[in-house]
Amino acid sequence: MKSNKILTSLNEQKNCQWRIAKRPNGNVMEEDFAYHEADIPSINNGEILLKTLYLNIAPVMRMYMSGDEIAGEHRLDIGDVIHGRGVAEIVQSKHPKYQIGDILHGQIGWQSYKKTKVTEKEKFRRLGDYGISYSVGLSTLGMTGFSAYFGFMSCGNPKENETVVVSGAAGGVGSNVIQLAKMMNCRVIGIAGSSEKCDLIKELGCDEAINYKNENVRDAIEEYCSSGIDIYFDNVGGEILSICLDNLAQNSRIVLCGSISEYLNKEQYSLNNYTKLRKTNSSMRGFFIYNHVDEFDKAEDDLIRWIKDGTITPLEYIYNGFKNMPNALAGIYNGKNSGVALCRVRRGPYDK
Amino acid sequence: MKSNKILTSLNEQKNCQWRIAKRPNGNVMEEDFAYHEADIPSINNGEILLKTLYLNIAPVMRMYMSGDEIAGEHRLDIGDVIHGRGVAEIVQSKHPKYQIGDILHGQIGWQSYKKTKVTEKEKFRRLGDYGISYSVGLSTLGMTGFSAYFGFMSCGNPKENETVVVSGAAGGVGSNVIQLAKMMNCRVIGIAGSSEKCDLIKELGCDEAINYKNENVRDAIEEYCSSGIDIYFDNVGGEILSICLDNLAQNSRIVLCGSISEYLNKEQYSLNNYTKLRKTNSSMRGFFIYNHVDEFDKAEDDLIRWIKDGTITPLEYIYNGFKNMPNALAGIYNGKNSGVALCRVRRGPYDK
Repeated sequence: MKSNKILTSLNEQKNCQWRIAKRPNGNVMEEDFAYHEADIPSINNGEILLKTLYLNIAPVMRMYMSGDEIAGEHRLDIGDVIHGRGVAEIVQSKHPKYQIGDILHGQIGWQSYKKTKVTEKEKFRRLGDYGISYSVGLSTLGMTGFSAYFGFMSCGNPKENETVVVSGAAGGVGSNVIQLAKMMNCRVIGIAGSSEKCDLIKELGCDEAINYKNENVRDAIEEYCSSGIDIYFDNVGGEILSICLDNLAQNSRIVLCGSISEYLNKEQYSLNNYTKLRKTNSSMRGFFIYNHVDEFDKAEDDLIRWIKDGTITPLEYIYNGFKNMPNALAGIYNGKNSGVALCRVRRGPYDK
Repeated sequence: MKSNKILTSLNEQKNCQWRIAKRPNGNVMEEDFAYHEADIPSINNGEILLKTLYLNIAPVMRMYMSGDEIAGEHRLDIGDVIHGRGVAEIVQSKHPKYQIGDILHGQIGWQSYKKTKVTEKEKFRRLGDYGISYSVGLSTLGMTGFSAYFGFMSCGNPKENETVVVSGAAGGVGSNVIQLAKMMNCRVIGIAGSSEKCDLIKELGCDEAINYKNENVRDAIEEYCSSGIDIYFDNVGGEILSICLDNLAQNSRIVLCGSISEYLNKEQYSLNNYTKLRKTNSSMRGFFIYNHVDEFDKAEDDLIRWIKDGTITPLEYIYNGFKNMPNALAGIYNGKNSGVALCRVRRGPYDK
């Protein structure tokens, strides 16, 4: 884990919030955000008060700010607090099932406190105390790690010695996928956007790393996957997906996890070779993590075991200080981060 | 079943063949084919001699003639007999497992006799005697019907009351899919290319029929599938696939069976909305019929039962006479046929 800035001060007497000032045009800019200090809410029966520890920074947040309707979240208007998952500690409870001191992760929004009835829609989940930073509730033990786990293990259905290509390999999901693929004894080719990231994904286990910024990805894929790709775990969409379609083995699986390359483009990438799926008896599958909610406990058990035995190292890119949230979101489009981008709002017990 | 021409004479003293004269440019033309009369082959130990009854006419044959490499078949040169599946009777046998009088369907090629060792590559299969025309070995009890059966029932995984869209609905596969979907109590919207075909698919059970030649398919799909498409069975590819992607329900399945709209275009259709799969937790899947070879017997049992109880009516478009093969192949691109296009080379016992 690395930190890029020291923790800046937080007004603990207020509920500090970031709200939408205007709809972003292209990447987010400072003027798209409005900082606001509201009162710390008081709770009623059946409610809890959460004190935010960490907030996730994810590409989807720009879409929330744009007013896009994203499955499961209500559409945001100008002036609304931006949606975002986070890890938080219960500091007050009038809810029979939740105790002070419990750690939850789920829908908190860009704010330093949240009052909630703990609705199903917010998708809160308790985080076990494993003696490691609670930030892991946003990385390997959170939806990022679960996306890797279910996307790769269930949708990808990996078998020993298969050839796996992962794009966005240095990202939050990708970094976990690499490590799961190595655990399954697959050959892993990672694609990332800088030589530093390529070094990093090789450290995580990639057999080959392709820097898409200065290498010809098609040539590299053809060289490294001469017998075809068995699983393409797609975190980026666009041209790299098209190249992988051209290099599928028979009975291969494409897992569509994200399309960061497309979030900023109004015109979506046109895929002119999807019929390769038919010719290779292959499937391309989008997956929705909450379809697997019944298996979340098992996923957490497996993932914490693999973290503890050294199979998986969570990769987190930590911004310090709530005031840094807008910069952090702009930053994930600049391609500097590796791992899960998150903001440490307050220091947790296992933080160094 | 309908016949468009009377049976023209066949030289029974020779093995009549259609060979590739030149590579087609666009649709096939008369000059792309060379008619040839070879000697009827004599067989050696381990071989059988087949006498052709029916030959299938399928879009893929133009690709064979173009010298495309198609999975499972060797690339054809100028002068080669064109690949094609057919139904034939064993008229000589020096093979311990095959008796004179057995009916097989499999790789015969455009010829009136074939000598073979019955290799695995030719994918021959015995056709039971059900008291119905052996042409059914090219329609509902052949790879066409099996494509509908496995593509729709296994890949499509239909559930009661789901909304199913079928393109190429009046075609060989599509006509079977419609009837299977109605059997599963789905709501079925068929897309076809003429008002005659739309009438026909409604007769087969479609709740709604869209004539893509004179209706706005997007408007019609939005109207008929206002709660989203659960299964899109794709026989055509291209723009209709894109429209269906825009109208998917959650957890929907796209089955890629064929892309006839693309066979004649050098530039493939660009799909700019494949990310809808991710947003709807859906899958798009190509399937290869021979992956299901272990279940072919069960498929035949099920399909013949459904034919006999009236659930499925095989839809065949029969050209009469071997000399008509080139016209027949050109014809399937003109969109006149409905059902499975086949050529009756010789009359079988149950033919009217």
